[in-house]
Amino acid sequence: MAQTTKIWRLKRGSDRRVRAGHPWVYSNELQGSPKGITAGEKILLMDASGAFLAHGYGNPSSLIAFRAVSRVESDVNWDGLAPLTEKLKAAWDFRAGLGVDRASFRWLFGEGDDLPGLIVDVYELVNTKRVVVVQAHTAGIDRLLPVILQAIESVAKPTTVVIRNDVSHRKLEGLLVEEPKILGELDASGDAIFIRSSDPAVKTTKETALTFRVDLAKGQKTGFFLDQSENIRQFLDLFLRAVANRKGNEPIRILDLCSYVGQWSAQISAALKARGIKSEVLLVDASSRALSFAKVNVERAGGTAETLEADVLADLPKLTGVEFDIVVCDPPALIPSRKDIPVGAAAYLKLNTEAFRLLAAKGWMITCSCSQLLEDETFAKQITRAMIRNHKDMRWLARGTQALDHPIRLEFTEGKYLKMWIGRDTGIERRLEKGK
Amino acid sequence: MAQTTKIWRLKRGSDRRVRAGHPWVYSNELQGSPKGITAGEKILLMDASGAFLAHGYGNPSSLIAFRAVSRVESDVNWDGLAPLTEKLKAAWDFRAGLGVDRASFRWLFGEGDDLPGLIVDVYELVNTKRVVVVQAHTAGIDRLLPVILQAIESVAKPTTVVIRNDVSHRKLEGLLVEEPKILGELDASGDAIFIRSSDPAVKTTKETALTFRVDLAKGQKTGFFLDQSENIRQFLDLFLRAVANRKGNEPIRILDLCSYVGQWSAQISAALKARGIKSEVLLVDASSRALSFAKVNVERAGGTAETLEADVLADLPKLTGVEFDIVVCDPPALIPSRKDIPVGAAAYLKLNTEAFRLLAAKGWMITCSCSQLLEDETFAKQITRAMIRNHKDMRWLARGTQALDHPIRLEFTEGKYLKMWIGRDTGIERRLEKGK
Repeated sequence: MAQTTKIWRLKRGSDRRVRAGHPWVYSNELQGSPKGITAGEKILLMDASGAFLAHGYGNPSSLIAFRAVSRVESDVNWDGLAPLTEKLKAAWDFRAGLGVDRASFRWLFGEGDDLPGLIVDVYELVNTKRVVVVQAHTAGIDRLLPVILQAIESVAKPTTVVIRNDVSHRKLEGLLVEEPKILGELDASGDAIFIRSSDPAVKTTKETALTFRVDLAKGQKTGFFLDQSENIRQFLDLFLRAVANRKGNEPIRILDLCSYVGQWSAQISAALKARGIKSEVLLVDASSRALSFAKVNVERAGGTAETLEADVLADLPKLTGVEFDIVVCDPPALIPSRKDIPVGAAAYLKLNTEAFRLLAAKGWMITCSCSQLLEDETFAKQITRAMIRNHKDMRWLARGTQALDHPIRLEFTEGKYLKMWIGRDTGIERRLEKGK
Repeated sequence: MAQTTKIWRLKRGSDRRVRAGHPWVYSNELQGSPKGITAGEKILLMDASGAFLAHGYGNPSSLIAFRAVSRVESDVNWDGLAPLTEKLKAAWDFRAGLGVDRASFRWLFGEGDDLPGLIVDVYELVNTKRVVVVQAHTAGIDRLLPVILQAIESVAKPTTVVIRNDVSHRKLEGLLVEEPKILGELDASGDAIFIRSSDPAVKTTKETALTFRVDLAKGQKTGFFLDQSENIRQFLDLFLRAVANRKGNEPIRILDLCSYVGQWSAQISAALKARGIKSEVLLVDASSRALSFAKVNVERAGGTAETLEADVLADLPKLTGVEFDIVVCDPPALIPSRKDIPVGAAAYLKLNTEAFRLLAAKGWMITCSCSQLLEDETFAKQITRAMIRNHKDMRWLARGTQALDHPIRLEFTEGKYLKMWIGRDTGIERRLEKGK
């Protein structure tokens, strides 16, 4: 029996953003009310004159009423097993075509892969298990999860699937925040995964890949921040050229702020160790569990690690009498929603002020923001203020963004979130005193 | 006999930008008139209450009345031989400390190195000559050129110095646009320089370095676009991972728009040749001389090259029936001044529209803007429009900026000018039709 797809029409003039490639429609842009459908129901979107715009799904109780999945009019059955399998396959092949390490990577990145609301990550455990972690952020994806799981099964043949519907923004879609579900086996002691080395000189094999202790069932995001892999590689490419002609054998001192499981400092330590250079890492995080993982990861990579359990926004001023050759400042999103912008921007200033205070003369600063709502310009301004407060004189050598398995669509700025600057202090103390 | 330094005071409240690290003061921010000094004369800047702000130089006939050289009050004699030598030495050491290739690089980048108005590039010729190319953009630097040349001599011991005061924006400072001056020998047939390979897998030595035919006396900028070296490296790092598992042996087709001397396509061709992959390059430029150099450079690097002498904004629509695996769109600054923003922004749209039209399915796009006045957001919008006009579906994998020997100070946004996005087409034809 043929199912009748619901049709929504946009108000006259409201089609401009959609025609410019943006996948969202707000409820006030619709002709009539979005009520009367089930949350997540399939919708065909038309403009005011009845011309086809997109296939997608709707949610009557979300501010974002419609999300587009296809711009091809004949894709009426886009939510069937075959087309969803095709879409997952295309995202997989796109990454394979980029030479993305197949051991652990983001397989599907929501709107970036034309499946708004769906996140799928792949992790390879040391014992050769392939774990796929799935997150449904919207009602449209939540409704399709059984079919999506079937599609994942057929493309990736995972040993284990973890459903991480424990993200709070599911509430915005009227969905429950659920406990993580593990389908299959997840070895409690097998919490180590392969991640390719970010050292550009290393061709990754199982032998040269780094392993990380992470918790795929309860860790942040899906257990790891896969989005930083290219930024770490870019930093290492710069930094390793700089240390190539280094004299002396003092260890490199690294401060890893909001270390989580120590990805940045473990990757740096491994690259330095391969070049016969020692590293001493101070890991700072609010979570003692994350710190215990980070310590394991850094030491496994060849660095020495100390840990400091602290709220970076409150406790850092107490850290005195030390300074670091490399400071990594990679906090979680400090601006979760639009109303948090002023407070969050101030938090970036505060945190970066401490970060610069702890940077040694001629040291390297890596400072990041994963707050999509923090504009590039504002982030740059806050970094600069923090620098000036510490009389530093930084030269910024490179900027970065999210890794290539989190592809950016420039027509969808809401999906471009990660910002990174790599800078080096000149060693000149620059006092720009306050006016009287 | 002690020289008395002229003192300028800012109006009350006009010190904010200077205290935030910005090196410029506009004439309307001064107490009183900037008239009465010689163009380029030494100035000590104070705030309204008489507190020291900066040492620098002034120009009574420029919109930018003052440029800061030092924030240290005791640096009264900053324009002497010893302090200027020290500054050049510091800039040299900063680059050496970053592992910047010493053969050919930007040695001093104006405000980025605390010497506003001065550009110094170093080139090593194949016959082991070291050529230093100097440009004075302001009256303050023009006045100091004799001392600066002495300082350059003592730090770099160049074989030849080329003074390239042939830049038109010298007029804004009331300076003459001069013919290039060659001090020493510049072998007319020795127009090939070493540039390090941007292939991240290659450790550059004289044997592995690429050589480029350029004209240091009359070419654009100082003869070469040194600012793209890290962007090419970043692209190659991505692209070479992608082709590592490539099947088949068809050549890679490269379109190099505004090729100048073919830097992008020569570097790509060399990296591909080292991996046994052929490349076929179409070089497009308005200058037949640049094209003849580019052809030499690409062929020397192992690619095959055809040339097309064309105005990319007028003639590209005539180029049909071909498509390319890689399109490099790296035009000269299309927005030279603020009044050119609307026309220039439209030119970026037009050029990128042609670039996307010529991109093969699943092709790679590298698109750049070196217009400082084109905002990141506007550039992203124009790229997106150009993409949509061609029904392409791009995923943007990395962004770049100017190379690390052109250091950015985030407190001086006027010095941050180069923008680059690297994207790949998914191969999906996305028709977003115009509304009726």
